Amino acid sequence: MYPAPIERLVTELAKLPGIGQRTAQRLAFHILRADDGDAQALAEAVREVKEKVGLCEICFNLAEGPRCEICEDPRRDRALICVVEQPADVIPIERTHEYRGLYHVLGGALSPIDGVDPDDLRITELVARIDGDEVSEVVVATNPTTTGEATAHHVAGLLRGRVAITRLASGLPVGADLEHADEVTLGRAFAGRRSLDAA
Amino acid sequence: MYPAPIERLVTELAKLPGIGQRTAQRLAFHILRADDGDAQALAEAVREVKEKVGLCEICFNLAEGPRCEICEDPRRDRALICVVEQPADVIPIERTHEYRGLYHVLGGALSPIDGVDPDDLRITELVARIDGDEVSEVVVATNPTTTGEATAHHVAGLLRGRVAITRLASGLPVGADLEHADEVTLGRAFAGRRSLDAA
Repeated sequence: MYPAPIERLVTELAKLPGIGQRTAQRLAFHILRADDGDAQALAEAVREVKEKVGLCEICFNLAEGPRCEICEDPRRDRALICVVEQPADVIPIERTHEYRGLYHVLGGALSPIDGVDPDDLRITELVARIDGDEVSEVVVATNPTTTGEATAHHVAGLLRGRVAITRLASGLPVGADLEHADEVTLGRAFAGRRSLDAA
Repeated sequence: MYPAPIERLVTELAKLPGIGQRTAQRLAFHILRADDGDAQALAEAVREVKEKVGLCEICFNLAEGPRCEICEDPRRDRALICVVEQPADVIPIERTHEYRGLYHVLGGALSPIDGVDPDDLRITELVARIDGDEVSEVVVATNPTTTGEATAHHVAGLLRGRVAITRLASGLPVGADLEHADEVTLGRAFAGRRSLDAA
């Protein structure tokens, strides 16, 4: 009922996750009213991201070339590898400024129900990195979910004996209160309790 | 912290209404993972909508050429003009299949607070259409909001005596129940009550 180009834009926008038909219409009308520069910049940004961004050949993080900025950075500690599920998981870890090693992006987590087997993840590539380089520790930072935990155990099983393996601590988030903590998190916080003497 | 093309795409997406930084990131990652065809289609749709869609020279509805499909349709009743605020308002009216006349899109509603004066709306153009064509009735279908009502009264004042002017009925939505109706709507429903004998 709208002119065809609007209908096409609504259709394309509605393919994005969490964007329903009504939101897509609202966005399409906004783009229609926006100045030409903004619309062109959006179109160009979509094109450019597909054209220029690929995966790092070492760690499979996002990269604007064969290798990502982190793998290219000579100041990073090459004896440490942090294993994450997705490229998006790298950012929050980088923001902490607590970690100065490299990464390895698996590309997902083991989930037999969803048909994700070890072969679907970049686990072979991780093992090859451990064997090849002078890696001393692998920090497994998959999500603290069922699939993330399963992946962590699988990876740990494969690497045991070859390298030190650690897992991110699970417990109460900073700023949380006990009253509203779920029992699984609270249980983890108890199991992982640390001596205050040692601190 | 992401490769530059991703940052640019996130920036452009976050300019869209209702899309915050986190949603923009989620959408950008989706586009990155989507197949090339979908991403190209989205970029092309954005470009095309800006390039090909303009406003109808008669009614200011959206048009893929000098005139919109409705103004070009010889089956429409040219003696009737329905006045709406925005192009998006045309669609729900068309969906009712109750109206077979033409439209006039004002481009907004009078709102002194937001600096929208009669000069900012296509009111002069509406008056010219009434004077020029064989129009017998103007249906004012601005929104039943403060600004929409103000606009309706302004338009009615200008056209009074030249043409019949009607306003869409205000009242209880079909399917609503009295218990949950707000008092303004219920008041309107009373004021606009109709004889069942006449029905």
